[in-house]
Amino acid sequence: MSWFWNVPGFPLDALKSPRFAQPITFARLPFIRNLRDNNVLGAFIGVPFDGGTTFYTGARLGPQFIRSESRLLRPYNAELDVYPFRVLRAVDYGDVDVVPTSVVKTLDRIEVTINEVINQGATPFVAGGDHSITLGVLRAVGRRFRPLVLHFDSHLDYWDEYWGERYTHGTWLRRAIEEGLISGVIQVGIRGSQYDKSDFEYAKASPVPIRTIMMSEVEVRGIDWLINELRNSLKGPVYITFDIDSIDPAYAPGTGTREPGGFTSREALTIIRSLSQASFELVGFDIVEVSPPLDTANITSLLAANIIYQAMSIKAKQVIGVG
Amino acid sequence: MSWFWNVPGFPLDALKSPRFAQPITFARLPFIRNLRDNNVLGAFIGVPFDGGTTFYTGARLGPQFIRSESRLLRPYNAELDVYPFRVLRAVDYGDVDVVPTSVVKTLDRIEVTINEVINQGATPFVAGGDHSITLGVLRAVGRRFRPLVLHFDSHLDYWDEYWGERYTHGTWLRRAIEEGLISGVIQVGIRGSQYDKSDFEYAKASPVPIRTIMMSEVEVRGIDWLINELRNSLKGPVYITFDIDSIDPAYAPGTGTREPGGFTSREALTIIRSLSQASFELVGFDIVEVSPPLDTANITSLLAANIIYQAMSIKAKQVIGVG
Amino acid sequence: MSWFWNVPGFPLDALKSPRFAQPITFARLPFIRNLRDNNVLGAFIGVPFDGGTTFYTGARLGPQFIRSESRLLRPYNAELDVYPFRVLRAVDYGDVDVVPTSVVKTLDRIEVTINEVINQGATPFVAGGDHSITLGVLRAVGRRFRPLVLHFDSHLDYWDEYWGERYTHGTWLRRAIEEGLISGVIQVGIRGSQYDKSDFEYAKASPVPIRTIMMSEVEVRGIDWLINELRNSLKGPVYITFDIDSIDPAYAPGTGTREPGGFTSREALTIIRSLSQASFELVGFDIVEVSPPLDTANITSLLAANIIYQAMSIKAKQVIGVG
Amino acid sequence: MSWFWNVPGFPLDALKSPRFAQPITFARLPFIRNLRDNNVLGAFIGVPFDGGTTFYTGARLGPQFIRSESRLLRPYNAELDVYPFRVLRAVDYGDVDVVPTSVVKTLDRIEVTINEVINQGATPFVAGGDHSITLGVLRAVGRRFRPLVLHFDSHLDYWDEYWGERYTHGTWLRRAIEEGLISGVIQVGIRGSQYDKSDFEYAKASPVPIRTIMMSEVEVRGIDWLINELRNSLKGPVYITFDIDSIDPAYAPGTGTREPGGFTSREALTIIRSLSQASFELVGFDIVEVSPPLDTANITSLLAANIIYQAMSIKAKQVIGVG
Amino acid sequence: MSWFWNVPGFPLDALKSPRFAQPITFARLPFIRNLRDNNVLGAFIGVPFDGGTTFYTGARLGPQFIRSESRLLRPYNAELDVYPFRVLRAVDYGDVDVVPTSVVKTLDRIEVTINEVINQGATPFVAGGDHSITLGVLRAVGRRFRPLVLHFDSHLDYWDEYWGERYTHGTWLRRAIEEGLISGVIQVGIRGSQYDKSDFEYAKASPVPIRTIMMSEVEVRGIDWLINELRNSLKGPVYITFDIDSIDPAYAPGTGTREPGGFTSREALTIIRSLSQASFELVGFDIVEVSPPLDTANITSLLAANIIYQAMSIKAKQVIGVG
Amino acid sequence: MSWFWNVPGFPLDALKSPRFAQPITFARLPFIRNLRDNNVLGAFIGVPFDGGTTFYTGARLGPQFIRSESRLLRPYNAELDVYPFRVLRAVDYGDVDVVPTSVVKTLDRIEVTINEVINQGATPFVAGGDHSITLGVLRAVGRRFRPLVLHFDSHLDYWDEYWGERYTHGTWLRRAIEEGLISGVIQVGIRGSQYDKSDFEYAKASPVPIRTIMMSEVEVRGIDWLINELRNSLKGPVYITFDIDSIDPAYAPGTGTREPGGFTSREALTIIRSLSQASFELVGFDIVEVSPPLDTANITSLLAANIIYQAMSIKAKQVIGVG
Repeated sequence: MSWFWNVPGFPLDALKSPRFAQPITFARLPFIRNLRDNNVLGAFIGVPFDGGTTFYTGARLGPQFIRSESRLLRPYNAELDVYPFRVLRAVDYGDVDVVPTSVVKTLDRIEVTINEVINQGATPFVAGGDHSITLGVLRAVGRRFRPLVLHFDSHLDYWDEYWGERYTHGTWLRRAIEEGLISGVIQVGIRGSQYDKSDFEYAKASPVPIRTIMMSEVEVRGIDWLINELRNSLKGPVYITFDIDSIDPAYAPGTGTREPGGFTSREALTIIRSLSQASFELVGFDIVEVSPPLDTANITSLLAANIIYQAMSIKAKQVIGVG
Repeated sequence: MSWFWNVPGFPLDALKSPRFAQPITFARLPFIRNLRDNNVLGAFIGVPFDGGTTFYTGARLGPQFIRSESRLLRPYNAELDVYPFRVLRAVDYGDVDVVPTSVVKTLDRIEVTINEVINQGATPFVAGGDHSITLGVLRAVGRRFRPLVLHFDSHLDYWDEYWGERYTHGTWLRRAIEEGLISGVIQVGIRGSQYDKSDFEYAKASPVPIRTIMMSEVEVRGIDWLINELRNSLKGPVYITFDIDSIDPAYAPGTGTREPGGFTSREALTIIRSLSQASFELVGFDIVEVSPPLDTANITSLLAANIIYQAMSIKAKQVIGVG
Repeated sequence: MSWFWNVPGFPLDALKSPRFAQPITFARLPFIRNLRDNNVLGAFIGVPFDGGTTFYTGARLGPQFIRSESRLLRPYNAELDVYPFRVLRAVDYGDVDVVPTSVVKTLDRIEVTINEVINQGATPFVAGGDHSITLGVLRAVGRRFRPLVLHFDSHLDYWDEYWGERYTHGTWLRRAIEEGLISGVIQVGIRGSQYDKSDFEYAKASPVPIRTIMMSEVEVRGIDWLINELRNSLKGPVYITFDIDSIDPAYAPGTGTREPGGFTSREALTIIRSLSQASFELVGFDIVEVSPPLDTANITSLLAANIIYQAMSIKAKQVIGVG
Repeated sequence: MSWFWNVPGFPLDALKSPRFAQPITFARLPFIRNLRDNNVLGAFIGVPFDGGTTFYTGARLGPQFIRSESRLLRPYNAELDVYPFRVLRAVDYGDVDVVPTSVVKTLDRIEVTINEVINQGATPFVAGGDHSITLGVLRAVGRRFRPLVLHFDSHLDYWDEYWGERYTHGTWLRRAIEEGLISGVIQVGIRGSQYDKSDFEYAKASPVPIRTIMMSEVEVRGIDWLINELRNSLKGPVYITFDIDSIDPAYAPGTGTREPGGFTSREALTIIRSLSQASFELVGFDIVEVSPPLDTANITSLLAANIIYQAMSIKAKQVIGVG
Repeated sequence: MSWFWNVPGFPLDALKSPRFAQPITFARLPFIRNLRDNNVLGAFIGVPFDGGTTFYTGARLGPQFIRSESRLLRPYNAELDVYPFRVLRAVDYGDVDVVPTSVVKTLDRIEVTINEVINQGATPFVAGGDHSITLGVLRAVGRRFRPLVLHFDSHLDYWDEYWGERYTHGTWLRRAIEEGLISGVIQVGIRGSQYDKSDFEYAKASPVPIRTIMMSEVEVRGIDWLINELRNSLKGPVYITFDIDSIDPAYAPGTGTREPGGFTSREALTIIRSLSQASFELVGFDIVEVSPPLDTANITSLLAANIIYQAMSIKAKQVIGVG
Repeated sequence: MSWFWNVPGFPLDALKSPRFAQPITFARLPFIRNLRDNNVLGAFIGVPFDGGTTFYTGARLGPQFIRSESRLLRPYNAELDVYPFRVLRAVDYGDVDVVPTSVVKTLDRIEVTINEVINQGATPFVAGGDHSITLGVLRAVGRRFRPLVLHFDSHLDYWDEYWGERYTHGTWLRRAIEEGLISGVIQVGIRGSQYDKSDFEYAKASPVPIRTIMMSEVEVRGIDWLINELRNSLKGPVYITFDIDSIDPAYAPGTGTREPGGFTSREALTIIRSLSQASFELVGFDIVEVSPPLDTANITSLLAANIIYQAMSIKAKQVIGVG
């Protein structure tokens, strides 16, 4: 079918086919599952699951709406001077077929799918879904790379359980540490009210180092300070998990447990972009907690698509640098 | 605290306290858990759970929004000439504390709560939540009464499983039959496309009688025919489960698996109201699948509140009749 | 300024100036206040007031949104074979400058404005605003014509007071009777729950006849019966007040005290249109309780605009008939 | 890629892959362009164009949202006892790459694409887009079949021009007649205000017969009468064009020029379904004027998807009957 | 009923009862009116009144939606190292039963209720309602404390009257000064267009000092400067009134008279939090003009809930410091 | 008609006629077309056209919604100490009667209307409509003044064509240069992904100087730097075109091709306001791409109205300075 798009890394051309035409894939990239034969280095994967949330649901529609808003992405990243899709020969790998009623079974399926991707030599760029899905991704990525995790969030996410349940969007990080999947964590953007003063104590007891950078500290020291801290701290294999609620609700209303006082979209894009100058290896990325039913004018999904674009650009820069 | 409302059966008076004032309970009735000492005969209970859905979520917010819209309910039902709240000494019992990530654990908790209610001599009027919760209610009500179930829905809901999961909003009815909780089913409003012709075969194999009245049959024979059929068929203990998607999406857009071509609100209210003339005993009622995030102008929650009101009126008529 | 529209009865032509262009007036008719010199027989007047509501507000935006949706109205009413605007030389008279914080002062201002209109020989077609405004209109129209009132509503509106207040959207009818403004009332569409059985007793005690046609009666006897009843009952000067909540919430969600089970838009348009065959004199019309912030897709305002159009058509038919 | 769906006529199975997972195609059917080799008899085609509208835009998003809502469609049509997708070996053919700024160029592209489909032996089921696109479809279908057109609409659509423009959503029918593409027209659902009494005169002057069934006539004579009229009138090759504004705004708010008083969804589905018993050959179908930005809760797109489903079912019945 | 929450200062535990379960009170605190016997030091009170607005209404729903969004508040304020609810033994006192049609009568009722609260030894934390309600609160608080008022707003609010009315949301401050209720005012955030240059002159003529800090001055001098100014100026009894329109519409769209160019949520939270280091006594607090019908995704209510939380934290710090 | 407003420069007084009353014009200014006899120096003109967009439509409703939100504008600009409406004797000139289906014909009509305005001695303040309309305005303004264009945007807008079409919202700037209408361009706010590295090359090849200030440069150097750059660069006749998508989507979600990371409303107002101190002559202004159907809570239209207000204030200051 020569008519249609099928070249990895090349989105359907908006100057020929209007952006609002044709079935929707991420960034209008081809929908391809055979990564190895196509030499794909970066794949978008959706995980439409919100069975791990503690308050509002809706994140199961995250992949659908992020794909929809991603149609505005164009091939060239001028700020970083790179063509992320072409360099990564990027594709849309489709979604994990989750089990909506079971976190545990869904984590298994995520692990299987992500292993498919990394075993074919591609880096996964995952769109959730609630934050519980990150555990599934880390079971694949973490067992291979045991990365340092850069964790954007307004919440600590290392609580032990909710209502007796151990696998939720607020406990995934403790589980990942307990399962030995990661070598450390840097948390950025933490704010809002806490359950208890003792919430912070797990960070000290944790078997791997956890550094928590509160939003209040960023406000005092500034974004430039934060960028420098991250650049200096990130080394070796790094996995980035980006909870969209690290962003202020004005910029990202579409998420389930919102905390006012977060990053602006400009700050977030600047921070992510700045990581292109750090010397680490990006081994995986996810953006989670985009809940389209709570969104307004789809701006949360739009921002999420742009953050994925910057993450792909970082990887592309690393690929070029290595090459 | 004489200031505030605390008499079962008597809503806060809108001629004194505006409807939009004060924390919200169902119909502005008092929030009371000690039913026996208050001689409560009818209790509103919320089950804010949507972990059993197969498509769109949001039904966990059903009880909140139904309560909010129920503030328009007034004490006297002129069409049936009854004061439902006063007769039932009705109260708001609060919600079941569900386990959002587990259908199975939630079913246990529902059963416990409903048993609390019926053991104190009150009939439960339940607001879901997705349709999986009905199984939990029936485990309490069904074990005591083994009722005939009057089932308003656009879907059959006796599928065996989804993605290998046996407890969902599409399988509760088969489970209830398998668990011996009910003595028969009359389904009303079924329509829309089906998975397969064989979907209907379980009705024949079922250990208890299942009568399925398709919407297309109602269209041909008319509402009056339907009312007569129901009046003639309903005897002994009856449990009514009302899936809001039996209503047309124009009247009830706020639900997760919508099928055009359903009942209008006028038809639904007329049908429910007409049951006051049948000679059965209402042993429980639920309305499910109201999903406020999908709603527009809260009309689905408003209709649900009015249907509960009619159901309470039927029970009140039965109580008076018995008295 | 020959460029622009200024001929009474002739809307700006959508075949030349697109419907979405130019500042908005009712039906794109000219905005004119000198009625007598223009021989205007019918004038649209807005009363943007919602200070008399007991639950949700928003009706102050009724005139704005009804004007906006009225841009779809075209000159020729095929069903009634009449050009209502041309016959009435209809114009948009603008709004009453209400006092948002005071029902009492606003009623005075309404009376003044409506007197301006009727003193110039035009029939007022009023868009509210909440139902309290009808009292102001009747103080002008009623003192001149002492009409029979045809009252579409889901509520009785003859309560005595709310929170000690005598002028509200639920008490205007009793005030109008007490003030001797009307000769009788026919209420159509009443439904929903009532405060008390005694609510209906005022109808018997009232100094003028009140006939209340419940929606439940219409359901049993049918729309044709209702039309006949109205045709036979309406004689002499008649004022029509149309509370949009007489319509079902699916068709008119944008109103503050909604009751499921009302008229469909098709029924409402048919009923209104059918009145063109009755032998009464329409001396005034209002449509009230359109609350755009509660609306979805502006369908309530759209329906209201179409009902006004039918009411103008009735008057136009009467004018032609008399002519 | 055995993992994914690729068999014409078989949607992705919701019992295995949740409905909200995976990139979206119509009814979750495979996205395939080679129709002949797959023996495809029915193809869904989107035409995302709204450059021909006279009031509100947004119909360019019709195909996207209809696809999204079509995920609820299941394989078996119980009312008609047919598996439409399997019988037609149905697929999603993707969209026409329209030229958003030019009606004329877009009509050319539509014609090319539809010719691709019919030349491969498949019947096109088209989702617009505004009504101007029907002219493009008819240039392909009409030149081959010169069909009778069954035209559901609230508007006549045979005006000559708007603002000097001859190709718009209100003039396509006159152009189609002038171009000799069709053998006659039956219009159903016409209502609302008209520009002028003379609007109806073209029907008499037209070189092919135009029968206009006003909504007011349907109200008087009933739906059964309409169904009989259509069954008796439809013979030979028939093309159905379904303007969603033939439906009442309560059921289909998402369209640009709405007229209250239209069909309910139940009536529409019944009428369409009933055509399975008429003896004509369906040579093409379109549903137009779905404008998702004006919609609420996507119910208009949902209804459109269901109407397409019924249309496919009719064709499937005809195929089986012929076979 | 030991099952349910009833201990002042302790919210229902989200780790046991999901946040979306149970009837809603502020921060899930108990609903208690007997403050003295419970040693309550801080009480949330709603004033659901919008009869004093000059443009858009909707603020009568403020308390309802602020309560709803407050469910995300947790017990521990990490930035200020304090448990505000526990220290204040905080409760939800319910709403003032306002008279929706009368500002004057409502002001009386507010005064009565607030006196109940302060006479029992608790500090009121009030959620409006439009800004006219602050006059009612000050009649209670001001007569006891004659506080300095810290006034966040984009408007001056000391106009004399609107349409001849003296009690509105734009005149409360002048009335409070005239009634001798306050000792001075510091206004922060003023911006947007003004009626006239003379608007500012009342500040000079006022019998108590009025300091007006324009937003344009804050932009030039910075937030740190503002914080220092406030810390230095606030002494003795201080009442804080926070008009949510001091926040930029991107962060607080849900309000009736919006002015672009306001504070961000981060700035607002930082400023409020910083006041914990000033040496004044907080004698009352209100947040007003939250209008949920105008909001998007409830972010305005969410921000308001968080600002109340910070205000309670300041008081708690003061209580501890005093203790 | 002395009752109503008709004095250029004087809005209807909100202290007498509530803001939500009366048909809507820009800033409640009189609707007048005879500019010369009224000595009008500044006129608001709407251009409701979105036929040149490449993605989402809706900008045809820009003038309607900007007018609606402009009702909050008051006569006095305190920051600039000027009464813009009075100085300019400002009026609402109404809209250009566009041809919705044709960019080319619409450009002609715009040119005619703008020439009417400038030939009468008034400066046009235009509200689009999509960005293609700027070409029409420049054909009038540019031929007289050949101005330097200050271009706020997130996109370059000097692409050559889309789908073979030369007149779109992404190509107007190249056309304006080719037609010799302007003397140079300063672009501010450019960001987001690009089609290709070569996109920027036209700036070098252009016959007039194009300076492109990327948003990333503004982030590094700061807003003060940008203000200085603009003040120093703007001389002689200047035309300002303000694409609302230069603003961040959190502040301006209502636009068709959004790019996260833009200006805040505070920054935008500060920048515009600061231009009052530069020594150029403002010969025309437009704000484009406001798409109300995509907006939330109308905040984009509100911001646009405020930006126009600041632009009028600049012109007023220039008029006074010259005077």
